[in-house]
Amino acid sequence: MSENLVRFGILGCANIARKVSRAIRLSRNATLRAIGSRSIDKAARFAAENGFPASAKVYGSYEAVLEDADVDAVYVPLPTSLHVRWAVAAAERRKHLLLEKPVALNAAELDTILAACEANGVQYMDATMWMHHPRTARMRQFLDDPRLFGPLKSVHSIFCYNPGHEFLNNDIRVKPDLDALGALGDTGWYCIRAILWANDYQLPEKVTALREVKYNEAGVILSCAASLSWADGKISTFYCSFLTNLTMDITCAGTNGNLRLHDFVIPFQENLAHFYTTSESRFAELSLGVVPVPNEHAVTTELPQDALMVSEFARLAADIERNGAKPEKKWPTISRKTQLVVDAVRVSIERGFEPVEVGN
Amino acid sequence: MSENLVRFGILGCANIARKVSRAIRLSRNATLRAIGSRSIDKAARFAAENGFPASAKVYGSYEAVLEDADVDAVYVPLPTSLHVRWAVAAAERRKHLLLEKPVALNAAELDTILAACEANGVQYMDATMWMHHPRTARMRQFLDDPRLFGPLKSVHSIFCYNPGHEFLNNDIRVKPDLDALGALGDTGWYCIRAILWANDYQLPEKVTALREVKYNEAGVILSCAASLSWADGKISTFYCSFLTNLTMDITCAGTNGNLRLHDFVIPFQENLAHFYTTSESRFAELSLGVVPVPNEHAVTTELPQDALMVSEFARLAADIERNGAKPEKKWPTISRKTQLVVDAVRVSIERGFEPVEVGN
Repeated sequence: MSENLVRFGILGCANIARKVSRAIRLSRNATLRAIGSRSIDKAARFAAENGFPASAKVYGSYEAVLEDADVDAVYVPLPTSLHVRWAVAAAERRKHLLLEKPVALNAAELDTILAACEANGVQYMDATMWMHHPRTARMRQFLDDPRLFGPLKSVHSIFCYNPGHEFLNNDIRVKPDLDALGALGDTGWYCIRAILWANDYQLPEKVTALREVKYNEAGVILSCAASLSWADGKISTFYCSFLTNLTMDITCAGTNGNLRLHDFVIPFQENLAHFYTTSESRFAELSLGVVPVPNEHAVTTELPQDALMVSEFARLAADIERNGAKPEKKWPTISRKTQLVVDAVRVSIERGFEPVEVGN
Repeated sequence: MSENLVRFGILGCANIARKVSRAIRLSRNATLRAIGSRSIDKAARFAAENGFPASAKVYGSYEAVLEDADVDAVYVPLPTSLHVRWAVAAAERRKHLLLEKPVALNAAELDTILAACEANGVQYMDATMWMHHPRTARMRQFLDDPRLFGPLKSVHSIFCYNPGHEFLNNDIRVKPDLDALGALGDTGWYCIRAILWANDYQLPEKVTALREVKYNEAGVILSCAASLSWADGKISTFYCSFLTNLTMDITCAGTNGNLRLHDFVIPFQENLAHFYTTSESRFAELSLGVVPVPNEHAVTTELPQDALMVSEFARLAADIERNGAKPEKKWPTISRKTQLVVDAVRVSIERGFEPVEVGN
């Protein structure tokens, strides 16, 4: 750590790394220290185009970033199939680990990563940005209010986008050797996290994939859906797709209230986000209308959610480095639960839409 | 028919009949002619309290309403288990039939009703009011626009309300001998209709009920959910419940756009209803936001949707009476499709959440 800033190295020049580089620049407790790519030219261009300071290092390999003693933490946006190798290598060099999602191809791989982080005392966090928006905390307060929301009954979540034909055949996210989970790993990950978040991270008992799944020619999932059920009768569903107009919805229904939002992954506006609640809704006399109408809540944020994610991750890393604190277990715990549900959906699809018990 | 008005008789004094009586009064081509109840006192009180004209007849039986030659059409809000008996009796007296939903306990019963209507040349319509709101036609235009919405990919619909303990044990809608379909028939009916509507009434190939179903002590469904799938990969889900805050959502996702509304069954306001669309949504540079933001559409209506329903039904009945027109087949056709899906959900639940092929 230098000047109390957590110094980041980035493995690879993925498009999303441009956004996270900016987030690191915006964070008051983090700084860009190094970028590594298999092509040093590409790394140099990336550093120049993304505001890296003149003192930042440019490397022609991922390995070199991990060998840099001045790198405190790494952000890993590599294709999913490379995560276990490079995330473990990073943890073993005692680099704190901000890992892009989907974090692994399955829970066994993630467990290998988490064991390496734990053995080396480094912080692990997946890069699910919306968790860090102040709106998320505000919505949590609403869901926790027994009078306004009451016991949760149902959640439906959707994350789709429609990137077009070129993407559907050539993007990393639909290559079986790179991101074999396809839309389930890319957008389903967020839906599953949203459902777990709304359920206070209580794992469902059973997961059942829904008919029908769409695949590309290589057999990678382009769209799928699933239902999740809990022993007490709660039910949740999600739909994720690369074939559908950009949609990012969470709809939570409780005994006494509702929560809705339509931009949960990426807010429509960077510094102002909305959500909608209703409580104790009822039909007016003769059912001629409904009262009350939904409330719109606006939440402003000075720093965007990606910078808040980096800031929280850097705060935890600094606390470990400076104060000998233990890594915060919340982040690996919820990441692993998300992966367990991803796995269950995949297994249910493979078994012809049979219900699958969620592992632990 | 008198003075070009279709003269309505109502069978029974159900609460919903108060609203439909008002709708008949508001309609310019319909009039209240008779009310029948097993208790003539109750019928008289109902007529007095619901603005029946002085010339209206009050009867101590349903039979007497059907025997009244001045009744052109009947509205039947009786418990579902009585529908087949009284709907057939009405058709056989050549009364046009506005039938409250759920229209029957199963498609076989509905087929008996529809055969009686067809044999007697009378109009059949189920009382699904939202079909008649001008908003519904406006939303249809949006869904039909290939540029703004594109091929439909997914629909999710929710209709829940939380009527409380007294209702859950004693209301007609949860009595196994009166409304054995429970929440599936009462609120699931609307969700299924919404999904069929969005799918241009193309029946799904398979229906699979989702875990878990909640029942009352008498074994009547209090909440359930299901997924519907089409051979081309379209998928839809719905959730219906008597245990959850009032929620009335339709969320349609197409290749190029989205449609959302939150009050599809009963608009929050009687004469002004909203819906929300987005088209060609995309992430802004670096995914720092999303453009465009959703559009809010406002649709005003001079007459409420229930009166528009009565007006359309009366228009069709009058066209038959006055001009010898044939009954409009659209209404029995979509009613029957809705019932077929209700049946498939019920069978899937009975078979332990197995996928069920939809009948025809």
